[in-house]
Amino acid sequence: MRMYDCISAKKAGRELPEEVIRYVVKGFTEGTIPDYQMSAFLMAVCLRGMTKAETLALTMAMAESGDMLDLSPIRGRKADKHSTGGVGDKTTLIVGPVVAALGVPVAKMSGRGLGHTGGTIDKLESFPGFAVSLSEQEFFAQVNRIKLAVMAQTANLAPADKKIYALRDVTATVDSMPLIASSIMSKKLAAGADVIVLDVKAGSGAFMKTKEDAAALAEEMVEIGNGAGRQTCAVVTDMNQPLGCCVGNILEVKEAIGALHGRGAEDLMEASLALAAQMLVGAGRAADYESGWKLAEGALKDGSAFEKFCEFIEAQGGDASFARDPEKFPRAAAALEVRAEQDGFIRSMQTEEIGMASLLLGAGRETKESRIDLTAGIRMCVKLGDCVSKGDVLAVLFAGDESKAAAARARLLPAIEIGEKPENRNGHVLKIIR
Amino acid sequence: MRMYDCISAKKAGRELPEEVIRYVVKGFTEGTIPDYQMSAFLMAVCLRGMTKAETLALTMAMAESGDMLDLSPIRGRKADKHSTGGVGDKTTLIVGPVVAALGVPVAKMSGRGLGHTGGTIDKLESFPGFAVSLSEQEFFAQVNRIKLAVMAQTANLAPADKKIYALRDVTATVDSMPLIASSIMSKKLAAGADVIVLDVKAGSGAFMKTKEDAAALAEEMVEIGNGAGRQTCAVVTDMNQPLGCCVGNILEVKEAIGALHGRGAEDLMEASLALAAQMLVGAGRAADYESGWKLAEGALKDGSAFEKFCEFIEAQGGDASFARDPEKFPRAAAALEVRAEQDGFIRSMQTEEIGMASLLLGAGRETKESRIDLTAGIRMCVKLGDCVSKGDVLAVLFAGDESKAAAARARLLPAIEIGEKPENRNGHVLKIIR
Repeated sequence: MRMYDCISAKKAGRELPEEVIRYVVKGFTEGTIPDYQMSAFLMAVCLRGMTKAETLALTMAMAESGDMLDLSPIRGRKADKHSTGGVGDKTTLIVGPVVAALGVPVAKMSGRGLGHTGGTIDKLESFPGFAVSLSEQEFFAQVNRIKLAVMAQTANLAPADKKIYALRDVTATVDSMPLIASSIMSKKLAAGADVIVLDVKAGSGAFMKTKEDAAALAEEMVEIGNGAGRQTCAVVTDMNQPLGCCVGNILEVKEAIGALHGRGAEDLMEASLALAAQMLVGAGRAADYESGWKLAEGALKDGSAFEKFCEFIEAQGGDASFARDPEKFPRAAAALEVRAEQDGFIRSMQTEEIGMASLLLGAGRETKESRIDLTAGIRMCVKLGDCVSKGDVLAVLFAGDESKAAAARARLLPAIEIGEKPENRNGHVLKIIR
Repeated sequence: MRMYDCISAKKAGRELPEEVIRYVVKGFTEGTIPDYQMSAFLMAVCLRGMTKAETLALTMAMAESGDMLDLSPIRGRKADKHSTGGVGDKTTLIVGPVVAALGVPVAKMSGRGLGHTGGTIDKLESFPGFAVSLSEQEFFAQVNRIKLAVMAQTANLAPADKKIYALRDVTATVDSMPLIASSIMSKKLAAGADVIVLDVKAGSGAFMKTKEDAAALAEEMVEIGNGAGRQTCAVVTDMNQPLGCCVGNILEVKEAIGALHGRGAEDLMEASLALAAQMLVGAGRAADYESGWKLAEGALKDGSAFEKFCEFIEAQGGDASFARDPEKFPRAAAALEVRAEQDGFIRSMQTEEIGMASLLLGAGRETKESRIDLTAGIRMCVKLGDCVSKGDVLAVLFAGDESKAAAARARLLPAIEIGEKPENRNGHVLKIIR
């Protein structure tokens, strides 16, 4: 087989057989296929597309390029969730305890990514003593004991995806449905869960700007997951404003604790319950979506989800007294209120820009080496459609010093558009794909 | 400017402004844009195309990436011809002397390419003593004196094209109309002629397999040439069989000498006269195509073209007695007749395969280091549509030893298809684009 012919076939729009796709992925990962051939191939994929069969083959080849986690030492059907990435997304902190409280095992391996805020692991490390460096044996044992554990990714998951993504990132070949879907799903398949629930974000703070594109991606991923023998479903959720109120690590942890007590912004509660319901159905714990939703609501109301959260924090060495009394968390040195400069209704938010403001505040990582300020972030005081008067507080910025807050303010303010007429509000969950 | 954005814009099918195209070509040539970005860009060009304006800008950027020859020391309108490459194409050896004999200066700079046979320079070196390493001053002086000179390429012509072509060659991005057209035209523009006549081949021995594709390429190149201020026209000619009878260096030189005496295969004469006519018109020596054709025919008939050829060979140190008595040329050590294995009509030829057979005989270069056997090659004894009986000689193969001839025979024989019914024959010149 020659890479030249593989490029040529894809360029001509032909469907590539599985063995050809495996050859390409293996050759590029091992370094026998050079970057310049791979990037031409990827551009051809972007412009010619891939069939479902090709996309599944690509996903499997990438998933199998590294370790495939074997979660069989954990009893029961293991459920996992994955979000395509948004601003203020703290649902894992809520959904994990809810589902675990209802007896469904959640064994989550997490990385520390780049972004507007840290990842789930960074957020959990807000609790003094919380440790993520479990051995696999400890990890499995904890999930069997309390149904929930989060460990830092140690395994070599889908290295082919990592290498291919790095090339896509510099060759303008990121936005291709089959490439995005296979990239996400290769890691999820390698992570070993039996049930995969995807949260595909749509809007100004998401990679997919429209509901239609997000739904198409969701459908593609669901098809891959099911094609690979995992029970997979998805929700498409709105990302035209930050999810809930807070963006930033400790701020989001505190918000999640509130939500675990049933006190959360409407969109955050809706997202969390929808995801939990899907996981419960997938794991066979609920017969259908509606009963899954009710079960999840019940676990919030009766306090079992919050207790599961505390148990989980303690199991990993964390000080759960912070969860019981969130006022104990440290606060940022500087706080700055951002106020409306005119009367009107919140018409739109450039959510990506709000994320960038959070990064400027120090809440996220710009490079792998960046240090996160766990206290930094944004508390949004308005949601889309809200009526505001000139001088009302739109958001409060938290940072290590005032200069950072000022820089973030300059980025945040133009990102919140105030118009004269109220807008129609949409529900947060835009579509459910089973 | 960022290369990422240039790739992204072309991927989206947008027209790139001239300065963007210049940035890409310059950056890649200088090495600041890496191969993997350029190959993604080239694939996007293949699949999204380029407008006329983009193609012209690309051509100019590549032409100006190296030396732009200044032929102004040569008096008159300098005419050049270029063939897109076929099997058995020796027209330069005929057209050059014809046009020069009629007073039009032909200043030809030639490279030594890879291929089924050597290039024009290799063929001319069949004459003992013939030298191509002229200085520019000698080159200009010779054209002013006798209207015709051929020198080996010393100038750094279109290095951007060279580097881009090398990448296209390994990334399946060769077959794109704007990339092919700009590649050819960048070198022609850099070579400095005022009048450019293109011979675009169509058929089984050409890059363009159909008349339509060849005509489209021809039109694209003519537009570029004229857009760049050079008088440019093209002929589309048939390459469904080798041009004339011979393939191989000395064999072709001898055939060209015959043609200069007016004794040549019909297709070879037609191609040569059409090209010469176009050059004469372009240079203002003939009022129209028909009178150009008649002038060229006259130069063959009255012997002035042949005398010009001898004068040219001598001017560059060659022994023109070989032209006057071609029997003096050395012959190959081995000759092998290939005979028809059935009765019928010559229905088709896989002309590319005939070229490969010539390469196996030693007539061309497989790599830059290959040594050419000037005596090797093929004399075809049939043309398309000819009626043959089993046992008739289809071709004679010439090589340094019998094993090469046997290998070439195995390749050649299946390339000549004999059918039961005669085929309609086409004229050789398929289209003229002025």
